[in-house]
Amino acid sequence: TSARVAGIPPTVFSRMSALAASTGAVNLGQGFPDTEGPSTIVEQAVEALRSGHNQYAPGLGTADLRRAIADHQWAQYGITVDPETEVVVTTGATEAIAGALLGLVDPGDEVIALEPFYDSYAAMTAFAGGVLRGVTLRAPDFRLDADALRAAVTKRTKLLLINTPHNPTGTVLDREELEAIARVAVDNDLIVVTDEVYEHLVYSGHEHVPLATLPGMAERTLTLSSVGKSFSLTGWKVGWATGPAELVAAVLGAKQWLSFTSGSPLQPAVAWALAHEQAWPASLARDLEARRDLLCDGLDALGLPARRPEGTYFAVTDISALGWRDGLEFCLALPERAGVVAIPLQGFYADGSRDGEQLVRWAFCKETAVLEEGLRRLGAAE
Amino acid sequence: TSARVAGIPPTVFSRMSALAASTGAVNLGQGFPDTEGPSTIVEQAVEALRSGHNQYAPGLGTADLRRAIADHQWAQYGITVDPETEVVVTTGATEAIAGALLGLVDPGDEVIALEPFYDSYAAMTAFAGGVLRGVTLRAPDFRLDADALRAAVTKRTKLLLINTPHNPTGTVLDREELEAIARVAVDNDLIVVTDEVYEHLVYSGHEHVPLATLPGMAERTLTLSSVGKSFSLTGWKVGWATGPAELVAAVLGAKQWLSFTSGSPLQPAVAWALAHEQAWPASLARDLEARRDLLCDGLDALGLPARRPEGTYFAVTDISALGWRDGLEFCLALPERAGVVAIPLQGFYADGSRDGEQLVRWAFCKETAVLEEGLRRLGAAE
Ligand SMILES: CSCCC(=O)C(=O)O
Ligand SMILES: CSCCC(=O)C(=O)O
Repeated sequence: TSARVAGIPPTVFSRMSALAASTGAVNLGQGFPDTEGPSTIVEQAVEALRSGHNQYAPGLGTADLRRAIADHQWAQYGITVDPETEVVVTTGATEAIAGALLGLVDPGDEVIALEPFYDSYAAMTAFAGGVLRGVTLRAPDFRLDADALRAAVTKRTKLLLINTPHNPTGTVLDREELEAIARVAVDNDLIVVTDEVYEHLVYSGHEHVPLATLPGMAERTLTLSSVGKSFSLTGWKVGWATGPAELVAAVLGAKQWLSFTSGSPLQPAVAWALAHEQAWPASLARDLEARRDLLCDGLDALGLPARRPEGTYFAVTDISALGWRDGLEFCLALPERAGVVAIPLQGFYADGSRDGEQLVRWAFCKETAVLEEGLRRLGAAE
Repeated sequence: TSARVAGIPPTVFSRMSALAASTGAVNLGQGFPDTEGPSTIVEQAVEALRSGHNQYAPGLGTADLRRAIADHQWAQYGITVDPETEVVVTTGATEAIAGALLGLVDPGDEVIALEPFYDSYAAMTAFAGGVLRGVTLRAPDFRLDADALRAAVTKRTKLLLINTPHNPTGTVLDREELEAIARVAVDNDLIVVTDEVYEHLVYSGHEHVPLATLPGMAERTLTLSSVGKSFSLTGWKVGWATGPAELVAAVLGAKQWLSFTSGSPLQPAVAWALAHEQAWPASLARDLEARRDLLCDGLDALGLPARRPEGTYFAVTDISALGWRDGLEFCLALPERAGVVAIPLQGFYADGSRDGEQLVRWAFCKETAVLEEGLRRLGAAE
């Protein structure tokens, strides 16, 4: 094994989903819904499979899908991107992250990410030879500390890697926070890569504002999203990056060697979804909001208060309320003790940080009965 | 753009397919068939889409697909692999190559590849910080020079990256050549990564022998293949790596950050194909053999003699027979001059090598009428 791979622990999501499968635990860990996306979209994929979309799609993605992505950005947010040069389709947002970091970061460059961060950010920054610096969204409210962000910038800073709505904390950056990020980016002439896969999963009283819509940002911002979270089709792994042509070209420059292309028969269905099922993600969000409240109320009642997330389908708790100190130990013991799987956050902090030690994430993109059963089991184990 | 991406020219396949699309030329460039794979397999994907296979598959691949891959290796070649630890599913063989090189190669390590080599080998070796050394299969017969292979090994050599049946030359390594490779690998205790995606596309009088079946090789060989070439479903991008657990773990260690997983609704269909359509690839090969002869006879008649390939769906010609010197210039002019697209080989040689300058590759995985039209156009342009 290369040092680059040996130096990074395996993704916690695989470990925890394997544990859920082997113990029969209720899986409130990895973020995938147990209710499928719209059958209308599935039937479009059926149609594509049966009508000759089974050979390589172009490396950039099909022309129809790129156009649908550009139209989505315009219709939703008033963002203009040229489907010929400013959109690239990827194997989920994960490959867009990999492509952006390999395509933009040189050895020694610094990447600033909001901490806790999705684990691939650290892994791929390391693969690119970069150095990740975390700016911590601090419990219990998980807001951005704009001063800390500004202070994290050095001469070596190459890009800001933002994520809003934010996994795992559930924070949706508000306009003031976004403006602070934009100011730091413009003042220091930084590229911004923003992972907005939860763009449509935002709850009452909050609004997703794409970073690319802020003044001075369109020309420096690469926006990542995907079909998976918005349409409950996480296994399709069709994602995209949009933004200035030179940033998109950098992603393509790496991605062409990572997978070349993927999901040919799924791409036409994703294009159709973006054009014809525009209301679906918002209805999913309304539905998820009720499940968020069910989960958070239930955790509160168990003496495990959760910050009510503003977006995403994750809630974070501090297990020190139950007398536990170490979230990883807690999560490894939980399937046996309670028949439930959750995700410890400590892998989502920079090496050596202990900020996330006692934090645990619970997914609520599960059927009501599953959430109720999970809560019941947690209660019984107390 | 990072130096790693800026330093590598974009893949010639995208460039040439875009040129084919924009000029309406007959595309004998990128290797994808214009006849679809079996509808039985497509219907299995339809079934999977409709029956709830739309969320993340495990990072290793579904248990059924891993078992089907292991069974295929046993039934076809008598190779034993444990589906739990010795198989990983990837986004096509391309991602398996990327994962193997990122997972096994440290900066400064040397990788020996048969030259001309598929372009991602050089790109991903460079991404891993490795140094690619080519061992040239020399025109016109494109056989392995075993002495040159042995001489290419240094103290820094980490792995041999083999490809048989070989793209672009069409060489199928024979037993003597494979034994020479095995001796070099064993004598120098090297890992062997072998890309065998054309394993089933082998023509009369030749046989594909997996490197992993040679004495001393099973314990050091990572074998890559995919559904795309064997079942004419190149757009599905479901591939795999099989071999010793520690080599498979290295691929997974990188791949988990590149895409995490992909093609959930396609994986069950690929598992089904491997179990229930075992005779299909051989019938495809019989069919392709006739098209190979059509293309090669036609090129011969045009004064452009092609070595008759033993496997793959590519034939290579030396354009100096027509008075041309530079294959890239030839291929860039060809759509305009003749309405045909082909692939210049010069990008498939180590930097600075001029060995491939006058070599051009023609794909024959196209309908007979398309091949005839391509030949007619080439004849008319003479
Ligand atoms: C790619 S596995 C992780 C899925 C996810 O987004 C999460 O659980 O955070
Ligand atoms: C991934 S595009 C190239 C397809 C192919 O295998 C070839 O044309 O050589």
